Amino acid sequence: DIISAISAALADGPLQGKHILVTSGPTHEPIDPVRYIANRSSGAQGTAIARALAGLGAEVTFVTGPADVPPPDGVHVVRVQTAAEMLAAVQAAKPADAAIFAAAVADWRVANAGTSKIKKTATGLPQLAFAENPDILATISQMGAGRPALVVGFAAETDDVIAHASAKRLRKGCDWIVANDVSPATGIMGGSENAVTLITEAGAESWPRMTKDAVAAQLAQRIAQEIA
Amino acid sequence: DIISAISAALADGPLQGKHILVTSGPTHEPIDPVRYIANRSSGAQGTAIARALAGLGAEVTFVTGPADVPPPDGVHVVRVQTAAEMLAAVQAAKPADAAIFAAAVADWRVANAGTSKIKKTATGLPQLAFAENPDILATISQMGAGRPALVVGFAAETDDVIAHASAKRLRKGCDWIVANDVSPATGIMGGSENAVTLITEAGAESWPRMTKDAVAAQLAQRIAQEIA
Repeated sequence: DIISAISAALADGPLQGKHILVTSGPTHEPIDPVRYIANRSSGAQGTAIARALAGLGAEVTFVTGPADVPPPDGVHVVRVQTAAEMLAAVQAAKPADAAIFAAAVADWRVANAGTSKIKKTATGLPQLAFAENPDILATISQMGAGRPALVVGFAAETDDVIAHASAKRLRKGCDWIVANDVSPATGIMGGSENAVTLITEAGAESWPRMTKDAVAAQLAQRIAQEIA
Repeated sequence: DIISAISAALADGPLQGKHILVTSGPTHEPIDPVRYIANRSSGAQGTAIARALAGLGAEVTFVTGPADVPPPDGVHVVRVQTAAEMLAAVQAAKPADAAIFAAAVADWRVANAGTSKIKKTATGLPQLAFAENPDILATISQMGAGRPALVVGFAAETDDVIAHASAKRLRKGCDWIVANDVSPATGIMGGSENAVTLITEAGAESWPRMTKDAVAAQLAQRIAQEIA
């Protein structure tokens, strides 16, 4: 809304003068002109983080897949569909002081995606070949010269959350991982609350369950402490 | 809205006393707890048809996948996610005087859908096995005793529209097929207009491009002529 856009523009916060890149939402990977592979990310957490960072005075570039929630005001919005488009948008938005990769990017795409609708075959079943998508988090974490001072990844896990997420931090080369348990029983996927563990070089720090807005506010404060 | 709900309830139209089943929207077929296969159906055409039929006095059961547009007022709404759930809802809603299958039902589902998130394998690529979904249109078209007097299928094609759709009518055993060209260049998928060909025993009848509401009104009139 107008109020938040104005407050963001006027914000004399700790992140003023900083450019922060935030990705959010799902990606959609086409199978053919009518079918695609998607994931259940609503974009709610990434949107809240972008809003919180703008509220602390940051200039935010918000690269978003087809999310359920509208993007926040007061940020520069770049809309994409696929992982490949998201990487291209991230590359184009650099340089940045920090990059927060909250999007749920598809790990793979359909390599033989068709320009015509797939017809049923004799067996009735499709033959889909998959190809690995670009790894946006690893690409930016390991880019060398011009790397953002702080790179934050997300890990949505359904089991063994801290072990999987700690391994992911080392494998990708990012600074922090925000990990959470998206098992259906938690109700977090698509819900308004989140229960995250922040994994840094210093270890794992589990935050209490709170609203996604509160998680965003706390994470934005930590980012400000780190780079401001 | 309230006005249309009241007018539907008061409608003294040609379809009063008739129960019509309408399916609409996409289906979502899970891959694992966070990923799914979807299709680009917005549900706009099925929703418009249900509204038009209710406006002619029909009692409408509206079985809808996760569509972009809200269901019409004045109909009985049943929400589903997968093709299997849609068939179960259709079976539960019988008997009906007519059944209009406007949903874009996935032809197949992931047979090895996981309850944990798929992790990257050594090759980095998933091994998905597919299974054929129930064919709702064929099941109802060929049910024998208790079959709706009029069964209408839809065919969203990207090439050779009339030939593919005419063959589909014979293969499924339905009475009519509403066929259209959903090639990206037409802008029909997700747009407000449609250009359909009505395929009956008598042949193929191409309607001019018009709004989805106008297609729905014309189709509802034809249905009323057929079964009222």
